[in-house]
Amino acid sequence: MRKIRVAAAQLGPIQRDEKREAVVARMIALMDEAAREGADLVVYPELALTTFFPRWYHEDRAEADVWFERAMPNEATAPLFARAREHGMGMSFGYAELTPEGRHFNTAILVDKAGAIVGTYRKIHLPGHDEFDPERTHQHLEKRYFEPGDLGFPVWRTMGGVFGMCICNDRRWPETYRVLGLQGVEMVLLGFNTPSVNSQKGAEAHDQRMFHHRLSVQAGAYQNSTFVVAVAKAGTEDGHHLMGGTCIVDPDGVILGEIPHEDDGILVRDCDLDATRFGKETVFDFARHRRVEHYGLITQRTGAVAPE
Amino acid sequence: MRKIRVAAAQLGPIQRDEKREAVVARMIALMDEAAREGADLVVYPELALTTFFPRWYHEDRAEADVWFERAMPNEATAPLFARAREHGMGMSFGYAELTPEGRHFNTAILVDKAGAIVGTYRKIHLPGHDEFDPERTHQHLEKRYFEPGDLGFPVWRTMGGVFGMCICNDRRWPETYRVLGLQGVEMVLLGFNTPSVNSQKGAEAHDQRMFHHRLSVQAGAYQNSTFVVAVAKAGTEDGHHLMGGTCIVDPDGVILGEIPHEDDGILVRDCDLDATRFGKETVFDFARHRRVEHYGLITQRTGAVAPE
Repeated sequence: MRKIRVAAAQLGPIQRDEKREAVVARMIALMDEAAREGADLVVYPELALTTFFPRWYHEDRAEADVWFERAMPNEATAPLFARAREHGMGMSFGYAELTPEGRHFNTAILVDKAGAIVGTYRKIHLPGHDEFDPERTHQHLEKRYFEPGDLGFPVWRTMGGVFGMCICNDRRWPETYRVLGLQGVEMVLLGFNTPSVNSQKGAEAHDQRMFHHRLSVQAGAYQNSTFVVAVAKAGTEDGHHLMGGTCIVDPDGVILGEIPHEDDGILVRDCDLDATRFGKETVFDFARHRRVEHYGLITQRTGAVAPE
Repeated sequence: MRKIRVAAAQLGPIQRDEKREAVVARMIALMDEAAREGADLVVYPELALTTFFPRWYHEDRAEADVWFERAMPNEATAPLFARAREHGMGMSFGYAELTPEGRHFNTAILVDKAGAIVGTYRKIHLPGHDEFDPERTHQHLEKRYFEPGDLGFPVWRTMGGVFGMCICNDRRWPETYRVLGLQGVEMVLLGFNTPSVNSQKGAEAHDQRMFHHRLSVQAGAYQNSTFVVAVAKAGTEDGHHLMGGTCIVDPDGVILGEIPHEDDGILVRDCDLDATRFGKETVFDFARHRRVEHYGLITQRTGAVAPE
């Protein structure tokens, strides 16, 4: 039994003119609630400090730098780090990162119970497009404002387990979980901001998008025998609706709990990291069952090529 | 619109002493039913011609050769091929293959509407073990009787679409669908024989195993925007129960229909292969979104290696 008590800390909407300080205050309120429930680790969404700004088109990309953090922690987030240290609680959250070299990433960090940043992940599977697209019902300009992550999918041994991170659209790609699984991941921390309308298929129902979310997360958990903590930013931001779907999934792919609303709130579950062992040692004992000699196309070929 | 009308032809149990001729007669009855419903293609399960023999331990492996086919078609299956030609119907089924060189594979074939074998697939992800295991509630000796497939995961352009095959445990491995997806697969034909009891975890409920089956098939379909036709051998064979779960899944991962019983029976659905295009051109446009530079471990490493 290696129990970790994890709190998925969903954020409701953040409006465009909402200040980081106000958001951090909301995050601290959720952290305090998690502390009262005895959580070891609190997990916040992707781009937790601001509205989901890739919906806004800036012709001059530099104008979008206002959404980015040049250091972490920084003045706005220092109180969050301080409170986590005070509680002796680990945490993970996402933010837009502007590096000293001027590079832009959609980033998540993992902070241990002593307040040290022990892990950084930069989003690899950027959805959307990079130029204004008049055909879409709304813009999704992640490919405009971020470059794809350059750190791969690392894992970190901390807080008694093996942790990995991924962000939003990464969860739809089985490669994400598999690269983590091949490093023995036991818990994947995953923040997301998912519009409840498909910008290219308005008829796609909210339920169908929630189904795809759950399907991807549950399959990734099951097929790598890992916990997944999936945390939404939800609700209506300046007229644009983000679906919820915050959930904690066990290594059998079973949803242990979900947040049924679209506001700020936490979901706390005890996760026994030793429960990942049965799957890893039987059906998904990769060493015995995988046949890499037949997987070559996965790394040799980026796009699909159909036969003549 | 590229419509193909497909019949998933589930087989109920086949007892150990049941002759191939009797099984072929059952398969023909299902084919005739599919023909009456106008099917273009009929899909049968894995190891369709015999009982699921890997549950039986033969100390002398050569004794198990009685379950294998030395040619295809052969005397027992010729009537099935003849009837398919007569109906102008494509078909796919699985059988144990013993090659002229003495090699053993768990094989599936794809036969076009003219009766020609246009595709052969040999199962790559063999589950189970290769020696008698007294710890298990029942034996699952696929690793004893078969070698892993040596043909990779090919696809074939036939009957107006791009088809791939996989077998049983292959469906739990996202690599299976991805290698097919990278070749533009539009319909995956998948036969299975799945014991309803986990031989190493008796407490795992039937429902949980059905959940894992559906989860794997639906995720593979969605994440590669392909139809999947999953066909069970079901019911109690000499006291050993195989779960059902025959289903046809669309490129959104949605189950279009399931067979709710464990007997011989068909499930017929119209599949528009053009419905695979939306997913392949948007969320799962691999060329735009995949980042193979970060997938290296998938082919470099077979087993999982956790950090120190």
